[in-house]
Amino acid sequence: MAIDDPKDPILILASQSPRRRYLLEQAGLSFSVIPSRFDEEAVPFKPGDAPEDYVRKLAQGKALEVSARYPRSWIIGADTTVMIQGKNLGKPSSNAEAFEMLKQLSGETHEVHTGFCICSESAEKRFSQSVRTEVLFKELTHAEIDWYIKTGEPFDKAGGYGIQGVGIILVRSINGSYTNVVGLPVCEVIETLIREGIAGFCSGNGFDLNRPENVSSGAFG
Amino acid sequence: MAIDDPKDPILILASQSPRRRYLLEQAGLSFSVIPSRFDEEAVPFKPGDAPEDYVRKLAQGKALEVSARYPRSWIIGADTTVMIQGKNLGKPSSNAEAFEMLKQLSGETHEVHTGFCICSESAEKRFSQSVRTEVLFKELTHAEIDWYIKTGEPFDKAGGYGIQGVGIILVRSINGSYTNVVGLPVCEVIETLIREGIAGFCSGNGFDLNRPENVSSGAFG
Repeated sequence: MAIDDPKDPILILASQSPRRRYLLEQAGLSFSVIPSRFDEEAVPFKPGDAPEDYVRKLAQGKALEVSARYPRSWIIGADTTVMIQGKNLGKPSSNAEAFEMLKQLSGETHEVHTGFCICSESAEKRFSQSVRTEVLFKELTHAEIDWYIKTGEPFDKAGGYGIQGVGIILVRSINGSYTNVVGLPVCEVIETLIREGIAGFCSGNGFDLNRPENVSSGAFG
Repeated sequence: MAIDDPKDPILILASQSPRRRYLLEQAGLSFSVIPSRFDEEAVPFKPGDAPEDYVRKLAQGKALEVSARYPRSWIIGADTTVMIQGKNLGKPSSNAEAFEMLKQLSGETHEVHTGFCICSESAEKRFSQSVRTEVLFKELTHAEIDWYIKTGEPFDKAGGYGIQGVGIILVRSINGSYTNVVGLPVCEVIETLIREGIAGFCSGNGFDLNRPENVSSGAFG
């Protein structure tokens, strides 16, 4: 998929996640990738936080940081978190932590929340949403967990697994959006882009994109 | 992923579907691809057929045909069918047929059934299973359906869409196995391979495979 002018992009994905990039490419969008410098560590998940609000807040933080640098572009920011029994699972930083996470997920249902935010500073527009998916893991043996950790896949992923990788064999079923578990609920993102006049179905493959100045202005909402 | 000796493979995928191949590679299996010559047209879906039995029967037919040619190998055969309101949707053969199918799916929940069969003639073993997933489409406008048909994606796929392609933007949510909708329920396939001693978690990445003669023999069941 061709990328729009990288010096002056119409649409920017404010994430360095190769999985989010892949999903938007799969959907047929043209965009540039400019990772956000927003400091997630400064906004840790606190017990009692509603995960749907938390991921929206972080997605907004990420998108707005890039929007300030690229005011003439549309920015997509996103954040994903994994919850089990009211507890937030981050990204494991050691084999032992990955083992503990995967043991917790084994045979159980957990929730994946992804928030996304689409905004433009020049158009003074901001749209955000969060989507929830339930994921049921099969029962994992210790040997299976050890084997999976050796693939290296757990370490840069919330919850310690990647559904779009070898981790697919750990997941028995899901209830909700699949792409939400990968890291971006593509159906809802495209719906927002179409509804707000940012993207249109073009006559060839893919989407036409409208610059913020071509989309009627409204309140930052 | 490396392919085992193509002249004498331990494991064969009896399908020419690039999507099934991709799923097994994603899971980390080594295998060869040898499409089945089983004649599906000779076993059409009849009104009143139970889809779970139908897809198992076809998966068995496909696997056994290749097994007869490669008796020393393990064979994986599979068949996928899409059902809506008790009706079986095949692969559309024209723009008009694709349009009708997608219009039927729009805003509704349909069922995807995939049957798989793993067998070996020399070991006299056969294991089969079918898996069901519910898929909810978003409401599609006529413009959206026309646009999707122009991508060319509907034409070689049961139900007229591909969830692993641009079709991902049509799907709001699923209930069940995602890979089952793509064409092969990978979690259940790997479970069968492990349970029956055909595959084992190896010390490096991927799986160790056992030839049929190394797996204790039993009745063809």
